[in-house]
Amino acid sequence: MTTTQLYNVAVLGATGAVGTKMLETLDKKNFPIKDLLLLSSKRSAGAEMEFQGKKYTVQEATPESFENIDIALFSAGGGVSKQLAPEAVKRGAVVVDNTSAYRMDPEVPLVVPEVNEEDIKSHNGIIANPNCSTIQMVAALKPIRDLFGMSRVIVSTYQAVSGAGNEALDELRAQSEAFLQGEDLKAELLPVTGEKKYYPIAFNALPQIDVFQENGYTFEEMKMINETKKIMHDDTVQVAATCVRLPFFTSHAESVYVEVDKSGVTVEQLKEAISNAEGVVLEDDPENQVYPTPLSAAGKPDVFVGRIRKDLDNDKGFHLWVVSDNLLKGAAWNSVQIAESLIKNNWLQK
Amino acid sequence: MTTTQLYNVAVLGATGAVGTKMLETLDKKNFPIKDLLLLSSKRSAGAEMEFQGKKYTVQEATPESFENIDIALFSAGGGVSKQLAPEAVKRGAVVVDNTSAYRMDPEVPLVVPEVNEEDIKSHNGIIANPNCSTIQMVAALKPIRDLFGMSRVIVSTYQAVSGAGNEALDELRAQSEAFLQGEDLKAELLPVTGEKKYYPIAFNALPQIDVFQENGYTFEEMKMINETKKIMHDDTVQVAATCVRLPFFTSHAESVYVEVDKSGVTVEQLKEAISNAEGVVLEDDPENQVYPTPLSAAGKPDVFVGRIRKDLDNDKGFHLWVVSDNLLKGAAWNSVQIAESLIKNNWLQK
Repeated sequence: MTTTQLYNVAVLGATGAVGTKMLETLDKKNFPIKDLLLLSSKRSAGAEMEFQGKKYTVQEATPESFENIDIALFSAGGGVSKQLAPEAVKRGAVVVDNTSAYRMDPEVPLVVPEVNEEDIKSHNGIIANPNCSTIQMVAALKPIRDLFGMSRVIVSTYQAVSGAGNEALDELRAQSEAFLQGEDLKAELLPVTGEKKYYPIAFNALPQIDVFQENGYTFEEMKMINETKKIMHDDTVQVAATCVRLPFFTSHAESVYVEVDKSGVTVEQLKEAISNAEGVVLEDDPENQVYPTPLSAAGKPDVFVGRIRKDLDNDKGFHLWVVSDNLLKGAAWNSVQIAESLIKNNWLQK
Repeated sequence: MTTTQLYNVAVLGATGAVGTKMLETLDKKNFPIKDLLLLSSKRSAGAEMEFQGKKYTVQEATPESFENIDIALFSAGGGVSKQLAPEAVKRGAVVVDNTSAYRMDPEVPLVVPEVNEEDIKSHNGIIANPNCSTIQMVAALKPIRDLFGMSRVIVSTYQAVSGAGNEALDELRAQSEAFLQGEDLKAELLPVTGEKKYYPIAFNALPQIDVFQENGYTFEEMKMINETKKIMHDDTVQVAATCVRLPFFTSHAESVYVEVDKSGVTVEQLKEAISNAEGVVLEDDPENQVYPTPLSAAGKPDVFVGRIRKDLDNDKGFHLWVVSDNLLKGAAWNSVQIAESLIKNNWLQK
């Protein structure tokens, strides 16, 4: 008889769009939890939440919250992570951080388990969960890169509003209703809360996700570029990104152009590589109009790939359409996978 | 004193999404009309429409409809154009055809006036209006190509539902309302009427516009590829396209990657080229979050360009965000521009 070891788990940002999906994922995966601690900012503290039939009161996160915690899943914004992740680590917790705070820190592994699980091993208490749009892209590209090499990626994204949080979802809903009733649209949150200007997202497309950098790219675009190189351990791979927010609630889609190293690779070979990959599902049958869409991917933990075709001019170029639930594989699911890997591989101890 | 010559003008498909915009454009441009004839399929015949304060009854189009017509603007589907354009030409009319019926016919000029107006001159009675997504892209790329050359384009589109006609707009509206009320979505038209499968467009993204070709590309994608080469008189330019239908009513947006021939070109040079181009408006100031969106471009005749930035790896590569009202510059406005050019340049006579 084997006894399963159980762990004390904290979820920081429990009431948020990603936090609630973290709880759903912990439940779905039957994660070996001893005590569960739900944490949030002061503003959301006191909220009541249910997990596996038991009621929990969300508590305000403080450094002391992490005493006796084994695994802490962070998703309460970069500032909170910067402040509290070191405190949690100091108290012996391993933090899986879903914010951008530590992603490019050379001391912190940035992990998509299907791509670079081994990197988790070298953690110093913090493992970063990549940006949602990065995760699904590298998951789809990994089997292609493994077999045929990869020199270049050009991606244009089609990103759901849930990536901007629950309040942005309320804004999309309110604006959509107003638009359909012929009323004026109130824009108070998107594209970026706290920025100079707001634009309606309902029945619109906003070519800005996160703030602009000096080079004219948005931070979201630079995340895709830099994180891809880090996850793939390859500074030479060329990555370009254009990130666009669109009026749907869940799932990001991506139009991806990829150049492989090998000549003569066929679409069939790419399809086979993707079919055999873990966590990636091929949905690609043009004759029967089979391809993934945001609605069809919502609520599912996998990365879906369709519309695979060869570039008409470049023998090494291919085009793909990659869709995944941004709150699941793009965030909560990937974070819990990292936590599972920590346990399974005995990597919790530093 | 000069007397303005007036012309007998027929609009075929007058009740459709593009047809109504053609009438608006003829009015807005104060087109020199003597008699106006509104034509449609049998189904829509009998409808009453108003133009410049006068009532018109839409008539069923027959070959005889085009007796005494000088200029016929066609937008009633490729089948109708195939059948009636030769009849109209036989009767002395010049046809500006907004369908895909004749676009790739070597005898038929395919024209975006800002790009290749001179091609109109060689017409044999029919001039084709390019696909909406092609028009705005080539209009934006023309000033860049003129100054710096152009070897390659990779485009991912964000296309409005109005490109699929008025009934598709009704479907988007009905589905959006159902979704917001928690009801099931009925999909009966999109992505392609008469195809095997229908998918909801509300709060979704459909990576299919028009039918699939044997090579895995959609016909919409092949239109962008082939029409761009024809309009630019350049079979060597490499063009790749991924076309996606999105849940907004008006304006197509495009994420365009372009490689120029010259080295060392700067973003400022591109911005200047676009600023100076006819029919193209630069809306590009990241610091102040200025960029075009489908809602901001709707109802305007220009092509708007923003988010211009240099590729981080390729000195000759640039990324742009191109937005235009698909029913105006993408269809009706461009058609009427061609008609104006016929008159202005005395090119009506073959």
